[in-house]
Amino acid sequence: MPPNDTIRAVEWKDNHLILLDQRKLPHAEHYLQIYSAEDTAEAIRNMVVRGAPAIGITAAYGLLMAARKAFKQYPHDWRSRLQTDIDVLAASRPTAINLQWALQRMVAAIDEQDPEPINTLMALAQRIHQEDIEANHRMAFLGNELIKPTHGVLTHCNTGSLATGGYGTALGVIRTAYSEGKIEQVYADETRPWWQGSRLTAWELMRDKIPTQLICEGAAAHLMKLGKISWVLVGADRIAANGDVANKIGTYSLAVLARFHSVRFMVVAPTSTIDMNTPTGEQIPIEERSPEEILNVGQQRIAAPQVSAWNPAFDVTPSKLVDILVTEKGIVVRPDNEKLVSLLQR
Amino acid sequence: MPPNDTIRAVEWKDNHLILLDQRKLPHAEHYLQIYSAEDTAEAIRNMVVRGAPAIGITAAYGLLMAARKAFKQYPHDWRSRLQTDIDVLAASRPTAINLQWALQRMVAAIDEQDPEPINTLMALAQRIHQEDIEANHRMAFLGNELIKPTHGVLTHCNTGSLATGGYGTALGVIRTAYSEGKIEQVYADETRPWWQGSRLTAWELMRDKIPTQLICEGAAAHLMKLGKISWVLVGADRIAANGDVANKIGTYSLAVLARFHSVRFMVVAPTSTIDMNTPTGEQIPIEERSPEEILNVGQQRIAAPQVSAWNPAFDVTPSKLVDILVTEKGIVVRPDNEKLVSLLQR
Repeated sequence: MPPNDTIRAVEWKDNHLILLDQRKLPHAEHYLQIYSAEDTAEAIRNMVVRGAPAIGITAAYGLLMAARKAFKQYPHDWRSRLQTDIDVLAASRPTAINLQWALQRMVAAIDEQDPEPINTLMALAQRIHQEDIEANHRMAFLGNELIKPTHGVLTHCNTGSLATGGYGTALGVIRTAYSEGKIEQVYADETRPWWQGSRLTAWELMRDKIPTQLICEGAAAHLMKLGKISWVLVGADRIAANGDVANKIGTYSLAVLARFHSVRFMVVAPTSTIDMNTPTGEQIPIEERSPEEILNVGQQRIAAPQVSAWNPAFDVTPSKLVDILVTEKGIVVRPDNEKLVSLLQR
Repeated sequence: MPPNDTIRAVEWKDNHLILLDQRKLPHAEHYLQIYSAEDTAEAIRNMVVRGAPAIGITAAYGLLMAARKAFKQYPHDWRSRLQTDIDVLAASRPTAINLQWALQRMVAAIDEQDPEPINTLMALAQRIHQEDIEANHRMAFLGNELIKPTHGVLTHCNTGSLATGGYGTALGVIRTAYSEGKIEQVYADETRPWWQGSRLTAWELMRDKIPTQLICEGAAAHLMKLGKISWVLVGADRIAANGDVANKIGTYSLAVLARFHSVRFMVVAPTSTIDMNTPTGEQIPIEERSPEEILNVGQQRIAAPQVSAWNPAFDVTPSKLVDILVTEKGIVVRPDNEKLVSLLQR
């Protein structure tokens, strides 16, 4: 196990799901005990758990709990009674494809001949979880090889242990590169409106004693102009067949700014994030969340009375602005359709 | 007077200064009564009043109060006793040049032969204030002529009545263009970390019933990509001799993004913002404010324990990214040194 890999946002223990409530971090480490698919879907929708890989793992456990319940109540036609739960889980958040990917893997494993179907599904959910952790370690290794000793790197949102099965995607690369002495300073966008940078990334990096400065999103261009960073590292919620990347709102802005300043732009995501059924970024559904997330901070109203807000949760970075895509199957320079097809065949 | 020109952030009344406390907006309209230069400097430093033109006007009244006090106490050598107050006022904020400009105008008016020096200074401070309001109306007229009917425009920080003597710079242009039916929707960056967009711009625009949606800074690129805006309109804190523009952190980011998306970028600022003694943006001092502004929202801690933040309050947009500069003396397309020299000679 690489250094600094202790945080687990999603755990399966004593036959139920345990989620670290990310809405309450960094002020409280509160764990929710989840026993049903409905509660799993609600936890995803309300962002108790977030981050594309972590959502996928969580959904797999959610479907496992749905199957277990249906199998107990209706041992003969439990499979047909699962559809509602599958639909509710699938609809809990629209942009991250890992959610659909994990549900499809689980559904595909439902075998009419299996005498122990629940044990089989449980083993699969745990394998999905374990594979994600291993993918993170592999991506950290591969991404780290690209980073030369530098002053600073910038990251956006949270792509660490909290967003994945463990260790992280972009943050896994940063952890490994820092442990090898290649990075002096991590800059993290505070990541409005949900503060993933201030609350979650900073919390993870402080636990690992990695020097971190938060910046407001508006300061990223100024930071680049001053020459303080050589890489922007981000995760992904869905990668279209042509290499376009949907990720947390603000990512596309960083990609444009990075190109303008000759700063390199690295996307770190497992192949479960690649969706070959979505031709380009234009077909990726972009979740719009409540304006209240922008107008208020916690219970505190910030904005003037009556004003409204536009709150897209994601944006799409065209593949031409992606210098490097790091997956557990290998690295892709300037991703495009052909390169992704070839990657997935490895 | 143009429509929607009712808010005054700075007033001189009954021989003292009244400032609308912008730290408390939009939740309370609280006015501070100010009687000394020290309290004026503190109000500027703490951002009771902000916005380059409003700071300049405020500093002029501050120096007037310093002169009045010195004249009363030391009628013979009051001029030489002013220097401390001038220095304190001049140092209250470093980036906006209007502050220095207003103080220099006041100092230049101190005439050893004047039998009524305080009346002279009072008239000058009020003239500086009145000239700014007139400049705003003129800039609104000139800027509006450039705007064709469009869906949306984006603005950053607050450039309205609260930032000026009245009416506003970029927001003055928006007010006038909206009143002529040319704009359907104003988008306003929330403007972290001080929320000038959410708290101040939204408050002004809601009072004027102008349709406004707040966005997080990270969403501006996505907004542009969707084709929702045709102009970015901003103010300025200092314009160097070569046309480089210092303005609220995040402005430079918008300028790069606007150019990338073929959205036009308009800077609206009175000529008092132009500093021909600063050759380029590189020589403009950029104020760095406390990390606490980023780590906390009001009394509420947001960020993880121990983490730090980098909080530059301004950035510099190179002149090559400025499509149009609107001043009260006229419009400059792609400003440069030669064009600014010629503008100031008009």
